[in-house]
Amino acid sequence: MTPTWTIERRIQFAETDMAGVLHFSNYFRLMEEVEHAFFRSIGYGVVCELDGMTVSWPRVSATCEYYAPLRFEDEIQIVLRVTHVGNKSLSYEVEFLRGPDRVAQGEITAICCATGESGTFRSIPIPEALRAPLARAASAEAAGG
Amino acid sequence: MTPTWTIERRIQFAETDMAGVLHFSNYFRLMEEVEHAFFRSIGYGVVCELDGMTVSWPRVSATCEYYAPLRFEDEIQIVLRVTHVGNKSLSYEVEFLRGPDRVAQGEITAICCATGESGTFRSIPIPEALRAPLARAASAEAAGG
Amino acid sequence: MTPTWTIERRIQFAETDMAGVLHFSNYFRLMEEVEHAFFRSIGYGVVCELDGMTVSWPRVSATCEYYAPLRFEDEIQIVLRVTHVGNKSLSYEVEFLRGPDRVAQGEITAICCATGESGTFRSIPIPEALRAPLARAASAEAAGG
Amino acid sequence: MTPTWTIERRIQFAETDMAGVLHFSNYFRLMEEVEHAFFRSIGYGVVCELDGMTVSWPRVSATCEYYAPLRFEDEIQIVLRVTHVGNKSLSYEVEFLRGPDRVAQGEITAICCATGESGTFRSIPIPEALRAPLARAASAEAAGG
Repeated sequence: MTPTWTIERRIQFAETDMAGVLHFSNYFRLMEEVEHAFFRSIGYGVVCELDGMTVSWPRVSATCEYYAPLRFEDEIQIVLRVTHVGNKSLSYEVEFLRGPDRVAQGEITAICCATGESGTFRSIPIPEALRAPLARAASAEAAGG
Repeated sequence: MTPTWTIERRIQFAETDMAGVLHFSNYFRLMEEVEHAFFRSIGYGVVCELDGMTVSWPRVSATCEYYAPLRFEDEIQIVLRVTHVGNKSLSYEVEFLRGPDRVAQGEITAICCATGESGTFRSIPIPEALRAPLARAASAEAAGG
Repeated sequence: MTPTWTIERRIQFAETDMAGVLHFSNYFRLMEEVEHAFFRSIGYGVVCELDGMTVSWPRVSATCEYYAPLRFEDEIQIVLRVTHVGNKSLSYEVEFLRGPDRVAQGEITAICCATGESGTFRSIPIPEALRAPLARAASAEAAGG
Repeated sequence: MTPTWTIERRIQFAETDMAGVLHFSNYFRLMEEVEHAFFRSIGYGVVCELDGMTVSWPRVSATCEYYAPLRFEDEIQIVLRVTHVGNKSLSYEVEFLRGPDRVAQGEITAICCATGESGTFRSIPIPEALRAPLARAASAEAAGG
Protein backbone atom coordinates (compact mmCIF):
# COMPACT_ATOMS: atom_id res chain seq x y z
CA MET A 1 0.00 0.00 0.00
CA THR A 2 1.39 3.36 -1.01
CA PRO A 3 0.94 6.48 1.09
CA THR A 4 -0.85 8.48 -1.57
CA TRP A 5 -3.72 7.85 -3.97
CA THR A 6 -3.78 9.59 -7.29
CA ILE A 7 -6.36 10.09 -9.99
CA GLU A 8 -5.87 11.70 -13.36
CA ARG A 9 -8.49 14.07 -14.58
CA ARG A 10 -9.14 16.40 -17.47
CA ILE A 11 -10.86 19.72 -16.76
CA GLN A 12 -14.27 19.73 -18.42
CA PHE A 13 -15.90 22.67 -20.18
CA ALA A 14 -18.88 22.77 -17.81
CA GLU A 15 -16.48 23.12 -14.88
CA THR A 16 -15.10 26.41 -16.17
CA ASP A 17 -16.61 29.82 -15.58
CA MET A 18 -16.75 33.02 -17.62
CA ALA A 19 -13.23 33.93 -16.41
CA GLY A 20 -12.11 30.96 -18.50
CA VAL A 21 -10.84 28.90 -15.56
CA LEU A 22 -11.94 26.04 -13.33
CA HIS A 23 -14.47 27.54 -10.94
CA PHE A 24 -12.99 27.68 -7.43
CA SER A 25 -15.87 25.62 -5.98
CA ASN A 26 -15.12 22.75 -8.36
CA TYR A 27 -11.76 22.02 -6.73
CA PHE A 28 -13.80 20.67 -3.83
CA ARG A 29 -15.67 18.34 -6.16
CA LEU A 30 -12.34 17.09 -7.47
CA MET A 31 -11.11 16.54 -3.90
CA GLU A 32 -14.19 14.43 -3.36
CA GLU A 33 -13.48 12.37 -6.46
CA VAL A 34 -10.05 11.35 -5.21
CA GLU A 35 -11.48 10.77 -1.71
CA HIS A 36 -13.98 8.32 -3.15
CA ALA A 37 -11.34 6.63 -5.29
CA PHE A 38 -9.34 6.23 -2.07
CA PHE A 39 -12.29 4.66 -0.24
CA ARG A 40 -12.83 2.25 -3.11
CA SER A 41 -9.14 1.34 -2.95
CA ILE A 42 -9.47 0.24 0.68
CA GLY A 43 -12.49 -1.87 -0.15
CA TYR A 44 -15.27 0.30 1.23
CA GLY A 45 -17.44 2.91 -0.41
CA VAL A 46 -17.59 6.39 1.06
CA VAL A 47 -21.13 5.34 1.91
CA CYS A 48 -21.31 1.75 3.15
CA GLU A 49 -23.28 -0.65 5.30
CA LEU A 50 -21.33 -1.74 8.39
CA ASP A 51 -22.49 -3.30 11.68
CA GLY A 52 -26.10 -2.71 10.62
CA MET A 53 -25.51 1.00 10.04
CA THR A 54 -25.27 3.20 6.98
CA VAL A 55 -21.89 4.83 7.47
CA SER A 56 -20.94 8.06 5.71
CA TRP A 57 -18.51 10.93 6.13
CA PRO A 58 -19.97 14.44 6.23
CA ARG A 59 -17.33 17.17 6.20
CA VAL A 60 -16.71 19.48 9.11
CA SER A 61 -14.12 21.57 7.32
CA ALA A 62 -12.81 22.08 3.82
CA THR A 63 -10.15 24.44 2.59
CA CYS A 64 -8.28 25.14 -0.61
CA GLU A 65 -5.38 27.35 -1.62
CA TYR A 66 -5.06 28.31 -5.27
CA TYR A 67 -1.65 28.96 -6.81
CA ALA A 68 -2.41 29.08 -10.54
CA PRO A 69 -5.59 28.81 -12.59
CA LEU A 70 -6.65 25.60 -14.33
CA ARG A 71 -8.21 25.77 -17.77
CA PHE A 72 -10.41 23.68 -20.07
CA GLU A 73 -8.77 20.41 -21.11
CA ASP A 74 -5.87 20.77 -18.69
CA GLU A 75 -4.83 17.31 -17.61
CA ILE A 76 -4.04 17.13 -13.93
CA GLN A 77 -3.15 14.72 -11.20
CA ILE A 78 -5.06 14.87 -7.94
CA VAL A 79 -3.19 13.31 -5.05
CA LEU A 80 -4.68 12.37 -1.66
CA ARG A 81 -2.63 11.84 1.49
CA VAL A 82 -4.22 10.80 4.79
CA THR A 83 -2.95 13.15 7.48
CA HIS A 84 -4.91 12.12 10.57
CA VAL A 85 -7.19 9.32 11.74
CA GLY A 86 -8.91 10.30 14.97
CA ASN A 87 -11.48 8.47 17.05
CA LYS A 88 -14.34 9.74 14.92
CA SER A 89 -12.61 11.94 12.34
CA LEU A 90 -10.51 11.59 9.22
CA SER A 91 -8.32 14.29 7.68
CA TYR A 92 -6.54 14.27 4.36
CA GLU A 93 -4.80 16.76 2.14
CA VAL A 94 -5.11 16.92 -1.61
CA GLU A 95 -2.59 18.27 -4.09
CA PHE A 96 -3.46 19.39 -7.60
CA LEU A 97 -0.59 18.92 -10.02
CA ARG A 98 -0.35 20.04 -13.64
CA GLY A 99 2.79 18.41 -14.86
CA PRO A 100 5.48 19.33 -12.34
CA ASP A 101 3.54 22.31 -10.97
CA ARG A 102 1.45 22.23 -7.83
CA VAL A 103 -1.43 24.51 -8.82
CA ALA A 104 -3.61 24.11 -5.73
CA GLN A 105 -3.72 22.34 -2.40
CA GLY A 106 -6.64 21.52 -0.14
CA GLU A 107 -7.49 19.84 3.10
CA ILE A 108 -10.68 18.18 4.28
CA THR A 109 -11.77 16.83 7.65
CA ALA A 110 -14.73 14.48 7.73
CA ILE A 111 -16.58 12.86 10.62
CA CYS A 112 -17.67 9.24 10.65
CA CYS A 113 -21.43 9.16 10.98
CA ALA A 114 -24.29 6.70 11.07
CA THR A 115 -27.25 7.84 9.03
CA GLY A 116 -30.54 7.68 10.92
CA GLU A 117 -33.97 6.79 9.54
CA SER A 118 -34.92 10.39 8.96
CA GLY A 119 -31.70 11.25 7.16
CA THR A 120 -30.00 12.68 10.23
CA PHE A 121 -26.32 12.12 10.98
CA ARG A 122 -24.97 10.83 14.30
CA SER A 123 -21.19 10.82 14.82
CA ILE A 124 -19.73 7.45 15.78
CA PRO A 125 -16.28 6.05 16.46
CA ILE A 126 -14.80 4.81 13.21
CA PRO A 127 -15.78 1.11 12.93
CA GLU A 128 -12.83 -1.29 13.27
CA ALA A 129 -13.27 -2.66 9.76
CA LEU A 130 -12.66 0.85 8.41
CA ARG A 131 -10.12 1.93 11.02
CA ALA A 132 -7.55 -0.70 10.08
CA PRO A 133 -7.06 0.28 6.44
CA LEU A 134 -7.28 3.99 7.28
CA ALA A 135 -4.61 3.60 9.95
CA ARG A 136 -2.41 1.70 7.51
CA ALA A 137 -2.78 4.53 5.02
CA ALA A 138 -1.90 7.12 7.65
CA SER A 139 1.03 5.17 9.06
CA ALA A 140 2.36 4.45 5.62
CA GLU A 141 2.27 8.19 5.24
CA ALA A 142 3.90 8.81 8.59
CA ALA A 143 6.56 6.26 7.72
CA GLY A 144 7.17 7.08 4.10
CA GLY A 145 6.06 10.69 3.82
CA MET B 1 -23.37 51.76 4.91
CA THR B 2 -23.79 48.77 7.15
CA PRO B 3 -20.92 46.44 8.02
CA THR B 4 -22.53 43.30 6.66
CA TRP B 5 -24.36 42.32 3.48
CA THR B 6 -27.01 39.66 3.59
CA ILE B 7 -28.86 37.65 0.99
CA GLU B 8 -31.70 35.23 1.56
CA ARG B 9 -31.64 31.98 -0.29
CA ARG B 10 -33.61 28.76 -0.51
CA ILE B 11 -31.67 25.52 -0.95
CA GLN B 12 -32.50 24.04 -4.36
CA PHE B 13 -33.02 20.37 -5.16
CA ALA B 14 -30.14 20.24 -7.64
CA GLU B 15 -27.80 21.52 -4.92
CA THR B 16 -28.42 18.48 -2.72
CA ASP B 17 -26.62 15.17 -2.97
CA MET B 18 -27.63 11.57 -2.30
CA ALA B 19 -27.01 12.10 1.43
CA GLY B 20 -30.01 14.42 1.30
CA VAL B 21 -28.07 17.57 2.17
CA LEU B 22 -26.52 20.59 0.47
CA HIS B 23 -23.32 19.32 -1.14
CA PHE B 24 -20.31 20.72 0.71
CA SER B 25 -18.90 22.28 -2.48
CA ASN B 26 -22.07 24.32 -2.98
CA TYR B 27 -21.44 26.41 0.13
CA PHE B 28 -18.64 28.01 -1.87
CA ARG B 29 -21.06 28.89 -4.65
CA LEU B 30 -23.33 30.50 -2.09
CA MET B 31 -20.39 32.48 -0.68
CA GLU B 32 -19.79 33.74 -4.19
CA GLU B 33 -23.43 34.79 -4.55
CA VAL B 34 -23.25 37.04 -1.50
CA GLU B 35 -19.83 38.29 -2.61
CA HIS B 36 -21.31 39.39 -5.91
CA ALA B 37 -24.32 40.96 -4.23
CA PHE B 38 -21.84 42.90 -2.09
CA PHE B 39 -19.92 44.10 -5.15
CA ARG B 40 -23.16 45.23 -6.77
CA SER B 41 -24.03 47.11 -3.56
CA ILE B 42 -20.85 49.18 -3.79
CA GLY B 43 -21.55 50.04 -7.40
CA TYR B 44 -19.07 47.76 -9.16
CA GLY B 45 -19.48 44.29 -10.56
CA VAL B 46 -17.11 41.56 -9.41
CA VAL B 47 -15.85 41.85 -12.97
CA CYS B 48 -15.62 45.47 -14.13
CA GLU B 49 -13.82 47.83 -16.48
CA LEU B 50 -11.63 50.32 -14.63
CA ASP B 51 -8.72 52.50 -15.82
CA GLY B 52 -8.80 50.65 -19.16
CA MET B 53 -8.45 47.24 -17.51
CA THR B 54 -10.78 44.32 -16.95
CA VAL B 55 -10.59 43.89 -13.19
CA SER B 56 -11.59 40.66 -11.47
CA TRP B 57 -10.94 38.82 -8.21
CA PRO B 58 -9.59 35.29 -8.48
CA ARG B 59 -9.43 33.50 -5.12
CA VAL B 60 -6.20 32.50 -3.45
CA SER B 61 -7.86 30.71 -0.57
CA ALA B 62 -11.29 29.48 0.43
CA THR B 63 -12.36 27.65 3.53
CA CYS B 64 -15.59 26.50 5.14
CA GLU B 65 -16.55 24.93 8.46
CA TYR B 66 -19.79 22.99 8.62
CA TYR B 67 -21.78 22.81 11.87
CA ALA B 68 -25.10 21.33 10.74
CA PRO B 69 -26.42 20.05 7.41
CA LEU B 70 -28.69 22.11 5.18
CA ARG B 71 -31.54 20.44 3.35
CA PHE B 72 -33.79 20.99 0.33
CA GLU B 73 -36.01 24.05 0.70
CA ASP B 74 -34.25 25.29 3.83
CA GLU B 75 -34.41 29.07 3.83
CA ILE B 76 -31.17 30.61 4.95
CA GLN B 77 -29.43 33.93 5.36
CA ILE B 78 -25.93 34.32 4.00
CA VAL B 79 -24.02 37.18 5.61
CA LEU B 80 -20.79 38.71 4.31
CA ARG B 81 -18.39 40.74 6.44
CA VAL B 82 -15.24 42.33 5.01
CA THR B 83 -12.36 41.40 7.29
CA HIS B 84 -9.31 42.80 5.49
CA VAL B 85 -8.48 45.12 2.59
CA GLY B 86 -4.82 44.81 1.66
CA ASN B 87 -2.82 46.46 -1.07
CA LYS B 88 -3.88 43.84 -3.62
CA SER B 89 -6.07 41.49 -1.60
CA LEU B 90 -9.55 41.36 -0.11
CA SER B 91 -10.72 38.99 2.61
CA TYR B 92 -14.21 38.42 3.89
CA GLU B 93 -16.00 35.92 6.05
CA VAL B 94 -19.41 34.49 5.37
CA GLU B 95 -21.91 33.14 7.87
CA PHE B 96 -24.72 30.76 6.98
CA LEU B 97 -27.74 31.19 9.25
CA ARG B 98 -30.89 29.08 9.40
CA GLY B 99 -33.15 31.02 11.69
CA PRO B 100 -31.07 31.72 14.80
CA ASP B 101 -28.58 28.92 14.11
CA ARG B 102 -25.21 29.44 12.50
CA VAL B 103 -24.92 26.28 10.40
CA ALA B 104 -21.67 27.06 8.59
CA GLN B 105 -18.98 29.70 8.31
CA GLY B 106 -16.47 30.37 5.57
CA GLU B 107 -13.69 32.71 4.61
CA ILE B 108 -12.35 33.73 1.24
CA THR B 109 -9.34 35.75 0.18
CA ALA B 110 -9.27 37.13 -3.35
CA ILE B 111 -6.60 39.02 -5.27
CA CYS B 112 -7.32 42.04 -7.43
CA CYS B 113 -6.24 41.21 -10.97
CA ALA B 114 -6.22 42.72 -14.41
CA THR B 115 -7.19 40.23 -17.09
CA GLY B 116 -4.77 40.10 -20.00
CA GLU B 117 -5.55 39.54 -23.67
CA SER B 118 -4.92 35.84 -23.47
CA GLY B 119 -7.07 35.32 -20.40
CA THR B 120 -4.18 35.48 -17.97
CA PHE B 121 -4.40 37.22 -14.60
CA ARG B 122 -1.91 39.83 -13.34
CA SER B 123 -2.24 41.01 -9.74
CA ILE B 124 -2.55 44.77 -9.32
CA PRO B 125 -3.02 47.20 -6.44
CA ILE B 126 -6.73 47.67 -5.83
CA PRO B 127 -7.79 50.68 -7.96
CA GLU B 128 -8.75 53.75 -5.90
CA ALA B 129 -12.32 53.74 -7.16
CA LEU B 130 -12.77 50.29 -5.64
CA ARG B 131 -10.56 50.83 -2.59
CA ALA B 132 -12.69 53.58 -1.11
CA PRO B 133 -15.95 51.64 -0.76
CA LEU B 134 -14.09 48.50 0.30
CA ALA B 135 -12.24 50.44 3.01
CA ARG B 136 -15.50 51.94 4.20
CA ALA B 137 -16.98 48.47 4.47
CA ALA B 138 -13.98 47.21 6.40
CA SER B 139 -13.76 50.20 8.73
CA ALA B 140 -17.46 50.09 9.45
CA GLU B 141 -16.73 46.55 10.49
CA ALA B 142 -13.66 47.54 12.48
CA ALA B 143 -15.72 50.23 14.19
CA GLY B 144 -18.04 47.50 15.35
CA GLY B 145 -21.11 48.89 13.60
CA MET C 1 -55.35 30.46 -9.71
CA THR C 2 -53.46 31.76 -12.69
CA PRO C 3 -52.40 29.53 -15.57
CA THR C 4 -48.68 30.24 -15.23
CA TRP C 5 -46.16 30.40 -12.40
CA THR C 6 -43.23 32.73 -12.63
CA ILE C 7 -40.00 33.15 -10.74
CA GLU C 8 -37.43 35.88 -11.16
CA ARG C 9 -33.81 34.91 -11.18
CA ARG C 10 -30.41 36.46 -11.69
CA ILE C 11 -27.76 34.46 -13.55
CA GLN C 12 -24.93 33.61 -11.18
CA PHE C 13 -21.23 33.62 -12.00
CA ALA C 14 -20.78 29.92 -11.20
CA GLU C 15 -23.52 29.10 -13.71
CA THR C 16 -21.55 30.57 -16.61
CA ASP C 17 -18.89 28.77 -18.62
CA MET C 18 -15.73 29.87 -20.39
CA ALA C 19 -17.79 31.00 -23.39
CA GLY C 20 -19.13 33.68 -21.03
CA VAL C 21 -22.71 32.43 -21.07
CA LEU C 22 -25.10 30.37 -18.96
CA HIS C 23 -24.04 26.76 -19.50
CA PHE C 24 -26.70 24.94 -21.52
CA SER C 25 -27.17 22.29 -18.82
CA ASN C 26 -28.08 24.93 -16.25
CA TYR C 27 -31.31 25.85 -18.04
CA PHE C 28 -32.58 22.49 -16.83
CA ARG C 29 -31.72 23.41 -13.24
CA LEU C 30 -33.65 26.65 -13.68
CA MET C 31 -36.63 24.71 -15.06
CA GLU C 32 -36.52 22.63 -11.92
CA GLU C 33 -36.49 25.73 -9.73
CA VAL C 34 -39.74 27.02 -11.21
CA GLU C 35 -41.20 23.49 -11.09
CA HIS C 36 -40.55 23.35 -7.37
CA ALA C 37 -41.90 26.85 -6.82
CA PHE C 38 -45.04 25.65 -8.64
CA PHE C 39 -45.35 22.58 -6.39
CA ARG C 40 -44.98 24.77 -3.32
CA SER C 41 -47.71 27.05 -4.68
CA ILE C 42 -50.20 24.15 -4.82
CA GLY C 43 -49.37 23.18 -1.26
CA TYR C 44 -47.19 20.12 -1.86
CA GLY C 45 -43.47 19.74 -2.16
CA VAL C 46 -42.05 18.09 -5.24
CA VAL C 47 -41.17 15.37 -2.75
CA CYS C 48 -43.97 14.73 -0.27
CA GLU C 49 -45.54 12.12 1.96
CA LEU C 50 -48.99 11.07 0.75
CA ASP C 51 -51.11 7.99 1.55
CA GLY C 52 -48.13 6.51 3.41
CA MET C 53 -45.84 6.86 0.42
CA THR C 54 -42.94 9.13 -0.44
CA VAL C 55 -44.07 10.63 -3.72
CA SER C 56 -41.65 12.21 -6.16
CA TRP C 57 -41.46 13.04 -9.87
CA PRO C 58 -38.51 11.63 -11.80
CA ARG C 59 -38.28 12.97 -15.35
CA VAL C 60 -38.78 10.81 -18.42
CA SER C 61 -37.94 13.54 -20.88
CA ALA C 62 -36.46 17.01 -20.88
CA THR C 63 -35.81 19.34 -23.79
CA CYS C 64 -34.69 22.90 -24.32
CA GLU C 65 -34.37 25.21 -27.30
CA TYR C 66 -31.97 28.12 -27.04
CA TYR C 67 -32.64 31.37 -28.93
CA ALA C 68 -30.11 33.76 -27.40
CA PRO C 69 -27.36 33.42 -24.80
CA LEU C 70 -27.81 34.48 -21.18
CA ARG C 71 -24.94 36.17 -19.36
CA PHE C 72 -23.76 36.82 -15.82
CA GLU C 73 -26.14 39.04 -13.85
CA ASP C 74 -28.87 38.91 -16.49
CA GLU C 75 -32.19 39.14 -14.71
CA ILE C 76 -34.75 36.81 -16.18
CA GLN C 77 -38.25 35.54 -15.69
CA ILE C 78 -38.87 31.81 -15.80
CA VAL C 79 -42.48 30.92 -16.55
CA LEU C 80 -44.07 27.49 -16.08
CA ARG C 81 -47.25 26.38 -17.81
CA VAL C 82 -48.81 22.95 -17.17
CA THR C 83 -49.53 21.38 -20.55
CA HIS C 84 -50.76 17.89 -19.67
CA VAL C 85 -51.87 15.91 -16.62
CA GLY C 86 -52.04 12.22 -17.46
CA ASN C 87 -52.89 9.23 -15.30
CA LYS C 88 -49.32 8.97 -14.04
CA SER C 89 -47.52 11.78 -15.86
CA LEU C 90 -47.23 15.53 -15.76
CA SER C 91 -45.91 17.76 -18.55
CA TYR C 92 -45.11 21.42 -18.46
CA GLU C 93 -43.34 23.92 -20.61
CA VAL C 94 -41.04 26.62 -19.37
CA GLU C 95 -40.24 29.95 -21.02
CA PHE C 96 -37.14 31.99 -20.28
CA LEU C 97 -37.74 35.71 -20.71
CA ARG C 98 -35.19 38.52 -20.56
CA GLY C 99 -37.30 41.63 -20.62
CA PRO C 100 -39.62 41.22 -23.61
CA ASP C 101 -37.42 38.61 -25.30
CA ARG C 102 -38.02 34.88 -25.10
CA VAL C 103 -34.44 33.59 -24.97
CA ALA C 104 -35.15 29.89 -24.44
CA GLN C 105 -38.01 27.44 -24.08
CA GLY C 106 -38.10 23.99 -22.56
CA GLU C 107 -40.45 21.12 -21.83
CA ILE C 108 -40.32 18.44 -19.19
CA THR C 109 -42.39 15.32 -18.62
CA ALA C 110 -42.24 13.71 -15.19
CA ILE C 111 -43.77 10.52 -13.84
CA CYS C 112 -45.44 10.25 -10.46
CA CYS C 113 -43.55 7.67 -8.42
CA ALA C 114 -43.52 6.15 -4.97
CA THR C 115 -40.04 5.75 -3.59
CA GLY C 116 -39.33 2.26 -2.27
CA GLU C 117 -37.21 1.30 0.74
CA SER C 118 -34.13 0.74 -1.35
CA GLY C 119 -34.43 4.03 -3.20
CA THR C 120 -36.15 2.53 -6.22
CA PHE C 121 -38.97 4.28 -8.05
CA ARG C 122 -42.35 2.71 -8.83
CA SER C 123 -44.74 4.65 -11.06
CA ILE C 124 -48.19 5.23 -9.57
CA PRO C 125 -51.38 7.00 -10.61
CA ILE C 126 -51.20 10.61 -9.43
CA PRO C 127 -52.81 10.67 -5.94
CA GLU C 128 -56.14 12.51 -5.81
CA ALA C 129 -54.81 15.14 -3.41
CA LEU C 130 -52.26 16.14 -6.01
CA ARG C 131 -54.42 15.55 -9.08
CA ALA C 132 -57.00 18.17 -8.16
CA PRO C 133 -54.66 21.19 -8.02
CA LEU C 134 -52.70 19.95 -11.04
CA ALA C 135 -55.91 19.58 -13.05
CA ARG C 136 -57.00 23.07 -12.03
CA ALA C 137 -53.67 24.42 -13.21
CA ALA C 138 -54.00 22.62 -16.53
CA SER C 139 -57.62 23.59 -17.08
CA ALA C 140 -56.93 27.19 -16.17
CA GLU C 141 -54.34 26.94 -18.87
CA ALA C 142 -56.74 25.26 -21.31
CA ALA C 143 -59.34 27.90 -20.57
CA GLY C 144 -57.23 31.01 -20.45
CA GLY C 145 -54.13 30.10 -22.40
CA MET D 1 -12.58 6.06 -38.30
CA THR D 2 -15.49 4.41 -36.55
CA PRO D 3 -19.01 5.82 -36.66
CA THR D 4 -19.34 6.25 -32.90
CA TRP D 5 -17.19 7.70 -30.12
CA THR D 6 -17.40 6.28 -26.66
CA ILE D 7 -16.19 7.39 -23.27
CA GLU D 8 -16.41 5.47 -20.03
CA ARG D 9 -17.47 7.32 -16.95
CA ARG D 10 -18.25 6.67 -13.33
CA ILE D 11 -21.11 8.60 -11.72
CA GLN D 12 -19.70 10.90 -9.03
CA PHE D 13 -21.25 11.65 -5.65
CA ALA D 14 -21.59 15.37 -6.33
CA GLU D 15 -23.60 14.55 -9.47
CA THR D 16 -26.35 12.82 -7.49
CA ASP D 17 -29.28 14.53 -5.82
CA MET D 18 -31.30 13.81 -2.69
CA ALA D 19 -33.37 11.26 -4.62
CA GLY D 20 -30.16 9.22 -4.73
CA VAL D 21 -29.77 9.38 -8.51
CA LEU D 22 -27.84 11.28 -11.17
CA HIS D 23 -29.54 14.66 -11.41
CA PHE D 24 -31.38 14.92 -14.73
CA SER D 25 -29.47 18.09 -15.70
CA ASN D 26 -26.15 16.28 -15.39
CA TYR D 27 -26.89 14.00 -18.35
CA PHE D 28 -26.38 17.09 -20.48
CA ARG D 29 -22.96 17.64 -18.95
CA LEU D 30 -22.08 14.06 -19.76
CA MET D 31 -23.26 14.55 -23.35
CA GLU D 32 -20.91 17.48 -23.54
CA GLU D 33 -18.01 15.39 -22.25
CA VAL D 34 -18.38 12.88 -25.06
CA GLU D 35 -18.91 15.71 -27.55
CA HIS D 36 -15.60 17.23 -26.55
CA ALA D 37 -13.84 13.86 -26.64
CA PHE D 38 -15.20 13.51 -30.18
CA PHE D 39 -13.87 16.93 -31.19
CA ARG D 40 -10.47 16.04 -29.76
CA SER D 41 -10.56 12.79 -31.76
CA ILE D 42 -10.93 14.70 -35.04
CA GLY D 43 -8.04 16.96 -34.16
CA TYR D 44 -9.88 20.12 -33.19
CA GLY D 45 -11.05 21.38 -29.85
CA VAL D 46 -14.71 22.28 -29.40
CA VAL D 47 -13.29 25.79 -29.16
CA CYS D 48 -10.54 26.41 -31.71
CA GLU D 49 -8.82 29.07 -33.77
CA LEU D 50 -9.49 28.72 -37.49
CA ASP D 51 -9.11 31.19 -40.36
CA GLY D 52 -8.40 33.94 -37.83
CA MET D 53 -11.62 33.27 -35.92
CA THR D 54 -12.44 31.73 -32.55
CA VAL D 55 -14.87 28.98 -33.53
CA SER D 56 -17.25 27.41 -31.03
CA TRP D 57 -20.53 25.52 -31.02
CA PRO D 58 -23.35 26.97 -28.94
CA ARG D 59 -26.37 24.68 -28.73
CA VAL D 60 -29.71 25.50 -30.24
CA SER D 61 -31.48 22.45 -28.87
CA ALA D 62 -30.85 19.71 -26.35
CA THR D 63 -33.08 16.84 -25.35
CA CYS D 64 -32.86 13.73 -23.21
CA GLU D 65 -35.10 10.76 -22.52
CA TYR D 66 -34.58 8.85 -19.29
CA TYR D 67 -35.33 5.12 -19.12
CA ALA D 68 -33.80 4.11 -15.77
CA PRO D 69 -32.03 6.02 -13.00
CA LEU D 70 -28.25 6.10 -12.65
CA ARG D 71 -26.68 5.93 -9.21
CA PHE D 72 -23.43 6.82 -7.46
CA GLU D 73 -20.49 4.80 -8.74
CA ASP D 74 -22.42 3.32 -11.66
CA GLU D 75 -19.98 2.77 -14.49
CA ILE D 76 -21.45 3.73 -17.83
CA GLN D 77 -20.58 4.10 -21.46
CA ILE D 78 -21.57 7.27 -23.26
CA VAL D 79 -21.74 6.87 -27.01
CA LEU D 80 -21.90 9.70 -29.56
CA ARG D 81 -23.13 9.30 -33.11
CA VAL D 82 -23.14 12.19 -35.61
CA THR D 83 -26.58 12.32 -37.21
CA HIS D 84 -26.43 15.45 -39.37
CA VAL D 85 -23.89 17.93 -40.69
CA GLY D 86 -25.64 20.97 -42.16
CA ASN D 87 -24.24 24.14 -43.64
CA LYS D 88 -23.88 25.74 -40.22
CA SER D 89 -25.22 23.10 -37.84
CA LEU D 90 -24.16 19.81 -36.33
CA SER D 91 -26.44 17.24 -34.73
CA TYR D 92 -25.54 14.15 -32.79
CA GLU D 93 -27.26 11.66 -30.57
CA VAL D 94 -25.86 10.23 -27.38
CA GLU D 95 -26.67 6.90 -25.76
CA PHE D 96 -26.09 6.13 -22.09
CA LEU D 97 -25.36 2.45 -21.52
CA ARG D 98 -24.99 0.63 -18.19
CA GLY D 99 -23.76 -2.77 -19.19
CA PRO D 100 -26.19 -3.98 -21.85
CA ASP D 101 -28.95 -1.56 -20.83
CA ARG D 102 -29.63 1.73 -22.57
CA VAL D 103 -30.63 3.90 -19.61
CA ALA D 104 -30.98 7.23 -21.40
CA GLN D 105 -30.70 8.80 -24.84
CA GLY D 106 -30.20 12.39 -25.85
CA GLU D 107 -29.78 14.59 -28.88
CA ILE D 108 -28.06 17.91 -29.32
CA THR D 109 -27.92 20.38 -32.21
CA ALA D 110 -25.18 22.99 -32.18
CA ILE D 111 -24.45 25.90 -34.50
CA CYS D 112 -21.00 26.77 -35.74
CA CYS D 113 -20.19 30.28 -34.55
CA ALA D 114 -17.39 32.80 -34.62
CA THR D 115 -16.94 34.57 -31.31
CA GLY D 116 -16.81 38.33 -31.62
CA GLU D 117 -14.69 40.78 -29.59
CA SER D 118 -17.45 41.43 -27.11
CA GLY D 119 -18.24 37.78 -26.54
CA THR D 120 -21.10 37.67 -29.00
CA PHE D 121 -21.73 34.72 -31.31
CA ARG D 122 -22.19 34.97 -35.07
CA SER D 123 -23.24 31.84 -36.96
CA ILE D 124 -20.95 30.88 -39.83
CA PRO D 125 -20.76 28.08 -42.40
CA ILE D 126 -18.70 25.25 -40.93
CA PRO D 127 -15.07 25.89 -41.99
CA GLU D 128 -13.75 23.35 -44.51
CA ALA D 129 -11.06 22.11 -42.15
CA LEU D 130 -13.78 21.03 -39.73
CA ARG D 131 -16.35 19.99 -42.31
CA ALA D 132 -14.24 17.21 -43.75
CA PRO D 133 -13.79 15.15 -40.58
CA LEU D 134 -17.39 15.83 -39.50
CA ALA D 135 -18.68 14.66 -42.87
CA ARG D 136 -16.56 11.52 -42.63
CA ALA D 137 -18.04 10.82 -39.22
CA ALA D 138 -21.56 11.33 -40.51
CA SER D 139 -21.10 9.31 -43.68
CA ALA D 140 -19.51 6.48 -41.77
CA GLU D 141 -22.71 6.59 -39.79
CA ALA D 142 -24.91 6.87 -42.89
CA ALA D 143 -23.07 3.90 -44.35
CA GLY D 144 -24.36 1.90 -41.43
CA GLY D 145 -21.05 1.15 -39.76
